[in-house]
Amino acid sequence: MNLDFLFRPKSIALAGAAHSDHKLGGIVLGNLLKFRGEVYPINPRYTELMGMKCYPTAFEIPAKVDLAVIMRPASEVPEMLCELKDKAKGAIIMSSGFSEIGEDLLQDEVRNLGKELGIRLIGPNCMGVYNPHHRLDTFFLPKERLPRPLKGNVSIVSQSGAILSCLLSVVKESHTGIAKAVGYGNAIDIDASDIFDYLAEDRQTGVVVSYIESVGDGRKFIASAKNLSDRKPFILLKSGKGPGGQAAAYSHTGRLAGRYDVFHSILRQFGIKEALDFDELMDSAKALSMQPPLGGPLSAGVRQSEGVRRICIITNGGGSGVLASDECMRQGLEVMHIPEEKKKKLASVFPDFYGLNNPVDLTAQVKDEDYAVVMTELAEHYDGFILIALPNVFGITANLGKVAGEARLKIKKPVTANIASGGISAKITRLMEKSGIPVYPSPERAVRGLKALLY
Amino acid sequence: MNLDFLFRPKSIALAGAAHSDHKLGGIVLGNLLKFRGEVYPINPRYTELMGMKCYPTAFEIPAKVDLAVIMRPASEVPEMLCELKDKAKGAIIMSSGFSEIGEDLLQDEVRNLGKELGIRLIGPNCMGVYNPHHRLDTFFLPKERLPRPLKGNVSIVSQSGAILSCLLSVVKESHTGIAKAVGYGNAIDIDASDIFDYLAEDRQTGVVVSYIESVGDGRKFIASAKNLSDRKPFILLKSGKGPGGQAAAYSHTGRLAGRYDVFHSILRQFGIKEALDFDELMDSAKALSMQPPLGGPLSAGVRQSEGVRRICIITNGGGSGVLASDECMRQGLEVMHIPEEKKKKLASVFPDFYGLNNPVDLTAQVKDEDYAVVMTELAEHYDGFILIALPNVFGITANLGKVAGEARLKIKKPVTANIASGGISAKITRLMEKSGIPVYPSPERAVRGLKALLY
Repeated sequence: MNLDFLFRPKSIALAGAAHSDHKLGGIVLGNLLKFRGEVYPINPRYTELMGMKCYPTAFEIPAKVDLAVIMRPASEVPEMLCELKDKAKGAIIMSSGFSEIGEDLLQDEVRNLGKELGIRLIGPNCMGVYNPHHRLDTFFLPKERLPRPLKGNVSIVSQSGAILSCLLSVVKESHTGIAKAVGYGNAIDIDASDIFDYLAEDRQTGVVVSYIESVGDGRKFIASAKNLSDRKPFILLKSGKGPGGQAAAYSHTGRLAGRYDVFHSILRQFGIKEALDFDELMDSAKALSMQPPLGGPLSAGVRQSEGVRRICIITNGGGSGVLASDECMRQGLEVMHIPEEKKKKLASVFPDFYGLNNPVDLTAQVKDEDYAVVMTELAEHYDGFILIALPNVFGITANLGKVAGEARLKIKKPVTANIASGGISAKITRLMEKSGIPVYPSPERAVRGLKALLY
Repeated sequence: MNLDFLFRPKSIALAGAAHSDHKLGGIVLGNLLKFRGEVYPINPRYTELMGMKCYPTAFEIPAKVDLAVIMRPASEVPEMLCELKDKAKGAIIMSSGFSEIGEDLLQDEVRNLGKELGIRLIGPNCMGVYNPHHRLDTFFLPKERLPRPLKGNVSIVSQSGAILSCLLSVVKESHTGIAKAVGYGNAIDIDASDIFDYLAEDRQTGVVVSYIESVGDGRKFIASAKNLSDRKPFILLKSGKGPGGQAAAYSHTGRLAGRYDVFHSILRQFGIKEALDFDELMDSAKALSMQPPLGGPLSAGVRQSEGVRRICIITNGGGSGVLASDECMRQGLEVMHIPEEKKKKLASVFPDFYGLNNPVDLTAQVKDEDYAVVMTELAEHYDGFILIALPNVFGITANLGKVAGEARLKIKKPVTANIASGGISAKITRLMEKSGIPVYPSPERAVRGLKALLY
């Protein structure tokens, strides 16, 4: 399905436009001010809103629009849709008050109306769309509360607005950017599969991160997810994993979550990457948004081989190295011994109390440059590197970010880091992430972030 | 074993004292300036250091000391110990360069010397001791790099200095404080068991958090851990869980890590709480440092019953609520339905689009006070509450911290929170934690934090 009307509309009507950014319809209108196409605010109580001509109903709009955004109480949505007959290709129904609170009849009515009228629907009960490449922003959250990431290559597909906004924050904080972001809510028409298909073809989308609660048509979903996953780095979090979560998912988006264990094994079978929880989704999203996966971006249809990956852990704190090792084991990554000749080489340049095993323990006497020495020396023997720094010794400085970033560019292997909190941690983290290395608050999360780059 | 000489010494000798805080021995001496007992710096090259008389060797010290701190290269440690004969009750050997890098003979020599001379040993390869109630700080990390927490009731027992410093940061950031903190390293004499026994009796210690890599005498360890766990909230992270991690643990502290699966099942059998990874240890430590567990502090010998706990999740973002539900299920916590009469009560005060299930979904139209209304109304039916707030809507303000904190004091049940990042998140988090509710960066971690307070 061509979703250009949704992600790259030429014109937009906003039902429920308001004058004040203390009203949701006012926030959306404010966010549409930067949109370069035509915007038609609809509100019978105004003739003008934010400098734009305002229309009493959609009937009066003097043109056809690609997209209508509906921000009115649920009970008014059917009427709004009727007014959009022959006017709009698609509509985002932001309003809540449908199946998620038991209003199934109303939701069915809206679904049927969409079909009858030939208007494709996103939502209801959803966040809408953000496409900075197109200056499109239909979110009902003000920018000062949800700072928007800049243009980039990460696309987000989330059934939940809450999780969408968390993912946007991660992308923003990672100094990377967004290709397309969409919160699609109750999915009475356009669903995750439709969006996956579109993003698989979308040139601006380099990486896709997705949170879903209900699958809908299982075969269609798996086919789309597999197609996407074959072509681009893609990671998925499915919630509603058990009876409690399923009930919660049902009352959230009014769609059955389905049996998770069956779904999970199908994903595995088709090689679709799954995050187990929120943190893993965020951590993977961060890694994928900052570095190309091992072997560079995927070419269409070419999957990476899935042999065991060899990891080198470089630390200045023994305990953190042990925890990273443990996590590598849990994740099926090999913490391979350092080849003997390399060990000798490193021993010749390092003090004799450094621990030249894997993890490499640079001890409390570490210097920034030591990390780069190990990375460079061992690059050919490992598939990825975990850098762990406890910045509470003098040898670790803010310069570590630059040193490690340069070494990464040289060795062309995935690298993630754990910088323990306290002291100059925040400064190192900022510089390291600017140089393209994602930083995590624990050794285990640095390992999980790296894993997302290795398979 | 009475470890007062270690945790509450009256006098300290420092072998390897230095003049500059760019040397480890200088940092330690600087940290000892606030100590109220006698301090005897030892360094043959100085007659005075930081305003204190300096002694060429321990022989010249004109008194007996409770504790010697040794910060000299490994090869000099035997000589230092000999000089302390009849002078010191115990010694902290901070120096690395022993079994952790294969120097087993040297380590054995030091162990035997300690026995012969009747000097109890902590270390080697360790961080030392921090007891703010006694103004004692032997850490070799400068305060600007590792800000020290204030006095409090949390004690930390860590084999690794790295993990110890991370735990100290968590305590510091949680606005709580430390009773005793010790990094005990290679454990050639005094080990975790000895310290657990001491802390079980220690009045200032309300909560114990521990990270260990090697167990040593398994029976002794389990007996001490069980005794401690029967008397005080106690949580343990054991690393070196698999072959890779075991090898890493061995090269870190030079002690075999042992088979994890056996150890794990014994802990379970004895009701000793275990964290599965670094994040869970930090999250549990944070919760236990901020709130009394369900039913209040344990009385000696009285364990809490371990029935299924009923959790109420209150959110303004459906997706986050679903993830919290999923995690409750994984953790064996029940997300029980809201009793019908309470649902009616809530329906009478809330807008009709609020989702009055569990999770309670306050939607994007939420107000701060709504959280307190639900907590108060449902307090008697639940054992604990998870508050989830996405602060990117106008209804959530910094005042949420105060409102939720007051409600918690009223209902007297464990409460944790997840505040999504972005916008005014940091401000709300600060205020909420000041009012005693630990805040976590994901729904799942808020659940795991709550769990630490429930069993």
